[in-house]
Amino acid sequence: LDYQHVQVPFEITLWIMLASLAKIGFHLYNRLPSVVPESCLLIFVGLIMGGIIYGLNDKSPPVMDSDIFFLYLLPPIVLDAGYFMPSRPFFENIGTILLYAVVGTIWNVFGIGFSLYGICQVKAFRLQDVSLLHNLLFGSLIAAVDPVAVLAVFEEIHVNEKLHILVFGESLLNDAVTVVLYKLFRSFCEMPAIKSVDVFAGIGKFFVVGLGGVLVGLTFGMTAAFTTRFTKDIRVIEALFGFLYSYLSYLTAEMFHLSGIVAIIACAMGMKRYVEANISLKSHTTVKYFMKMWSSVSDTLIFIFLGVSTIGENHEWNWPYICFTVIFCLIWRALGVLVLTFFVNRFHVNTITSKDQFIIAYGGLRGAICFSLVFLLPDFHRKKLFIAATTVVILFTVFVQGMTIRPLVDLLAVKRKRESAPTVGEQIHIRFLDHLLAGIEDISGHWGQYYWKDKLEYFNSKYLQKILLREYDQPKSSIVLLYEKLERKHAIELAEAGQLGHAPSHPSLLNNDRIVITDKKLEDTLNPDVLENIQEILARNLYRIRRTGPAYNRHTLPGETEPVEHAKEILILRHKSL
Amino acid sequence: LDYQHVQVPFEITLWIMLASLAKIGFHLYNRLPSVVPESCLLIFVGLIMGGIIYGLNDKSPPVMDSDIFFLYLLPPIVLDAGYFMPSRPFFENIGTILLYAVVGTIWNVFGIGFSLYGICQVKAFRLQDVSLLHNLLFGSLIAAVDPVAVLAVFEEIHVNEKLHILVFGESLLNDAVTVVLYKLFRSFCEMPAIKSVDVFAGIGKFFVVGLGGVLVGLTFGMTAAFTTRFTKDIRVIEALFGFLYSYLSYLTAEMFHLSGIVAIIACAMGMKRYVEANISLKSHTTVKYFMKMWSSVSDTLIFIFLGVSTIGENHEWNWPYICFTVIFCLIWRALGVLVLTFFVNRFHVNTITSKDQFIIAYGGLRGAICFSLVFLLPDFHRKKLFIAATTVVILFTVFVQGMTIRPLVDLLAVKRKRESAPTVGEQIHIRFLDHLLAGIEDISGHWGQYYWKDKLEYFNSKYLQKILLREYDQPKSSIVLLYEKLERKHAIELAEAGQLGHAPSHPSLLNNDRIVITDKKLEDTLNPDVLENIQEILARNLYRIRRTGPAYNRHTLPGETEPVEHAKEILILRHKSL
Repeated sequence: LDYQHVQVPFEITLWIMLASLAKIGFHLYNRLPSVVPESCLLIFVGLIMGGIIYGLNDKSPPVMDSDIFFLYLLPPIVLDAGYFMPSRPFFENIGTILLYAVVGTIWNVFGIGFSLYGICQVKAFRLQDVSLLHNLLFGSLIAAVDPVAVLAVFEEIHVNEKLHILVFGESLLNDAVTVVLYKLFRSFCEMPAIKSVDVFAGIGKFFVVGLGGVLVGLTFGMTAAFTTRFTKDIRVIEALFGFLYSYLSYLTAEMFHLSGIVAIIACAMGMKRYVEANISLKSHTTVKYFMKMWSSVSDTLIFIFLGVSTIGENHEWNWPYICFTVIFCLIWRALGVLVLTFFVNRFHVNTITSKDQFIIAYGGLRGAICFSLVFLLPDFHRKKLFIAATTVVILFTVFVQGMTIRPLVDLLAVKRKRESAPTVGEQIHIRFLDHLLAGIEDISGHWGQYYWKDKLEYFNSKYLQKILLREYDQPKSSIVLLYEKLERKHAIELAEAGQLGHAPSHPSLLNNDRIVITDKKLEDTLNPDVLENIQEILARNLYRIRRTGPAYNRHTLPGETEPVEHAKEILILRHKSL
Repeated sequence: LDYQHVQVPFEITLWIMLASLAKIGFHLYNRLPSVVPESCLLIFVGLIMGGIIYGLNDKSPPVMDSDIFFLYLLPPIVLDAGYFMPSRPFFENIGTILLYAVVGTIWNVFGIGFSLYGICQVKAFRLQDVSLLHNLLFGSLIAAVDPVAVLAVFEEIHVNEKLHILVFGESLLNDAVTVVLYKLFRSFCEMPAIKSVDVFAGIGKFFVVGLGGVLVGLTFGMTAAFTTRFTKDIRVIEALFGFLYSYLSYLTAEMFHLSGIVAIIACAMGMKRYVEANISLKSHTTVKYFMKMWSSVSDTLIFIFLGVSTIGENHEWNWPYICFTVIFCLIWRALGVLVLTFFVNRFHVNTITSKDQFIIAYGGLRGAICFSLVFLLPDFHRKKLFIAATTVVILFTVFVQGMTIRPLVDLLAVKRKRESAPTVGEQIHIRFLDHLLAGIEDISGHWGQYYWKDKLEYFNSKYLQKILLREYDQPKSSIVLLYEKLERKHAIELAEAGQLGHAPSHPSLLNNDRIVITDKKLEDTLNPDVLENIQEILARNLYRIRRTGPAYNRHTLPGETEPVEHAKEILILRHKSL
C-alpha cells in the first residue's frame, strides 16, 4: 500500500465526493430542503464530521486553510455569480448598491469596533487588554456581508429582483472595502505610531483597490473575448478560455493587492456577451453547466469545512464579548440600512419599502470570508477570542437568520420575484422607454443612467463588437425571424398530432418563391441548435407559461425547466382553436 | 506585489493558457497541422521555451515532475480514451490486443535489454559498467508503446478501425506489463541476490496487477452508475460523478500498486452506458465535452513539457549506446509484430495483412510515460545515459516516425477508416449475425466470443440495468419510433420549403385517432433533445452522407460535423422527387 504517493489528489477527490453525496442525500428527502437551507445542513454535516475527527484523534480537526479558501474555493462561486448576474437590475441599482457596500460597510466596521471597545472598558468582563485598534480590526472582518452565505439563502427564498440584487450586489462589492480596512488596521496594529497621512493613504487606497479590480477584470474579460474569436478550429478547448482568463484576473488582482472578487465579476460580466456569441452552443452549454457545477461544489465544500473547523480548541469563550458582538452586528446593520435607505429614498421615485429594508438588514449573513480572515490574523493573545466570536456570529446568522428569513418573508408578504418572463410586448415597451429616456436625457443635457447606457451601446456596436466578435452581422429583422420560427414550430406540432397533409389549419404566409432561397435558409435552420432556440423563444414569449424554476438559481441552469408543461398548454390552446 | 501567495495556481493557469494558445496558433494556419502532427509542433514549442529558460537562467529548466504526470496529466487522457473506446472492435480483437500487449511487450523488454547488454560488452564503447539488470530495467521502460503519442498520431491519419484499435489497445493494456517488469527489475537492482522464487512471484504479480486493475475499475464504474440513479434533483452536479469515480479508481489502483491505466479504462467502459442513460442530456454533453477538453489540454501540456525537459544538462551523450537503443527498438518491435501476427493469422479468418503489420510495427511510438519512468529511476552513475537515450528514442519516434507515417500510409494504400457510419440495413444484419453466431456457439457447445457476449447482454438486461438505471423500460419497437421521427422531420422540411398546407407530398400514415394519445406523446417529443436526436438518426441512417469528420477523433465531439452538407443533400433529394 502506497498511500503517501496519492494522498493529495485522493483526499481532495474524497472531500468533493463527500460533498456531492451529502447533496444527493438531502435531495432524496424532498421535505428537508424546503424547511432548512442547504447551507445549515452542510454545516451540520461538517460539525458531525469534525466531532468524529476530534473524538478519534483527540485533537482539533484541521481548520479550513485560508489559502485554499481564497485561491481555490471562492473564485468559482464569484465567477458563477458574476457570469449569471442579471445586468439590468444590477446597473439600475448600482448607486444604491455602492452606497450600501461602501458607506454601509464602513459604518458597520466603525460602529461595531467602537461599541465593542466600549464593552471592553467594563471591568467585570476582563477585556481591558483588547485595544481599540484590535476591536476595529475585528470589526473590519466581521462587518462584511458574505456573498456565499447570502447566495445560499436568497436563491431559495425568491424575493423580488431588486431586493435580491441589493443584498447580493452589496455582499460582492463590499469586498474592496473589507480588503482595504482589514489590511489597514492590520498594518496599524503592527505600527508603533499612526500618522494622519496613513489614514488618508488608506482612504485613497480604497479607490485604487476597487477601480483597479474593475480595470484588471475588464482587461482580462476583453482579452478572453478577443481570444475566442480564433477558436473556430479547436472547438474542444474554447470553453476553457472563459475559465482561464477569469481565474487569471482574480489571481492578478490578488497579486497586486486589489480586490479579486471585484476583478472576477468585472471580467465575467465584461466577457459574457462576446464569448457567448463567439463559441459554439455546445461549448457554451459546457461553460454554463460547468460554472454551476463548480460553484455548487465549492459552496458545498465551504459549508462543510466551516462545520469541521468549528469543532476544536481554538476558541476562548468570553461570553459577554461574543454576545455583544452578535447584538452589535444586528443593531448596526439595521441602523445603517435605515439611515442609508432614508437618503436613497429621497432621491428615487421607486423607493425601498420598510419591509424590504427589514429583509435587507436581516439578510446580512456572515460566512466563510470572515472565518478565513480571522484565521489570517497575526498571532496575539486574544486571537482565540476573536475566532470564537466569529464562529458564533456565523453560526447565528446562518442558522437563526437563515432559517427564519423564509417564514418572515412569507409573514411580511414581501414582494416576490415575478415568476414569468416578460412578454414580447413588455420587452418592446421597455426598450422603447429606454430609447425615449436616453433621448430626453440627451436633449436636457442631463448625463444620467440612460444617456451612458445609450453611449455604451453605441460604442459597443460601433467598435467593440467588430473587434471582439468572430462574425459580426447587422442584426436581422427579428419579426421575420420569429415568423419563420413559428412556421417551423407549427409544422412540428402538426406532425405530432398526426395531421400533416390532412388538415392544414392555417394557410402559410411563406410563398413558394421562397424555395429559391431555401438552400441558404436550410443552412441556418436545420441545425438542431436553432430548433432548440425556437422552443425557447416560443416558450418565453408566446405562451407565457408560469415558470416553476426561478430565473437565476445557482443550482439549476436556465432553461432547464421541464418542457412538459409548455407542451400541455400548447395542446390546450390548439384544441380551443379547432 | 505579492507573487508568492498566488504562485502555484498562477503558474498552473499560465501553463494551461500557453498550451491552449499554442493550439490556437497552429490551427490558424490550416496547412501546418496537415503536414506536421500536432505533437511534433508542441514538442518544438517546448524545446524553444526550454531553450529560452536555459538561456536566461543558465541552468537546466525544471523537468516534468513524474508525480504531476502520473497523478494529474495522464488520467484525463486515459479516461477520455476509455470512455470513447469503440467497444465492438475492441472486444472483437481483445485476444490479439492482449497478445501484442503482454507477450509483445515482454519480448521487446528482453530483446532490447539483452541486445543492449551485448553492446555494453564491446570495449570500444566504454559501457562495461552497465549491468544486465540495468539494461533490462532500461528495456522495461523503453519497450512500452505510449498511448498518448499513439493517440496523437493515429487520430490524424485515419487508418482502418481494426488497425487503429490494435495499436491503441496495445498501448493502453501494456501498462500492466510495464508496471510489473519495471518494478520487478528496479527491486532486483536493489536486492543483493535474486532467487528464482522472486522471478515466479513476478510472473504471478502480472496477473494480480492486470486483473486487479480491471476489478477496481469495474467496481468504481458500477458504483458510479448506481450513484447517478439518485441525481435527478441535483442535475447540476451529476456530471461530476463520472469524473470523481474514474479518478478514484485510478488513484486506488495506483495506491495498491495495480495498473491505474487499466483500472480507469475498465471504469470508463463499464459505467458509460449506464451513466449515459441516467444523466440528463445537458449533463452528458458536459461530460463528453469536458473529457475531450481536459484530455486535449493534458495532451498539449505533456508534449510541451516533454520539449522543455529535453533541454538541459541531464544527459550523458554516449552515442553508440543511444543509436543502438533506437535501432534495437525498431528491430525488436518489427520482429515481435511479425512473429506474433504469424500466430494470430493462423487462428483467424480475418487476417492482418503485411501492410497492416508494417504500420503496427512502425506505429510503436514512445512518449511521456517512458520519460517519466526514466526520471523515477533510483540514482546510479549511468542514469543520465538512460535519460539521454530515452529522450532520443522519444524524439526519434515522435518526429521521424510520426511525421513519415502519414505519407507511408498513403504510399502503401493502407485500408482507411470507413468514412460513413453503417446504414440501418447493415446494423440490422450485424445484429442478426451476432444472434445467429451466439446460437450456433450455444448449440455446438463452443464457448466463444459470441456466446459470452450474449450471456453478458442477458445478465445486463436481466439484473444490471434494473439495479443501475433510473428508469428501466422495456425497449420500444424501434421501427415505430423511427417512423414517428421521420414524420416529424418531414414536417420540418415542408415548413423550411414554405410548402406547409400547400402540397402535402405524401400521405401520412399516422391517423387522426392518434390525437387521443398526443398528450403523452408530446411529452416525449416536443423536447428539444428529442429533436436533436432525430436529426442525428436521420443523418446517420437515411441519407448516408459522407461524413467529413472521423468517427472517434479526440479533438472533436461526435456529431459536431456541420449539418450544412446534410441539408444540401436533403434538398437535392427533395428536388429530384418533385
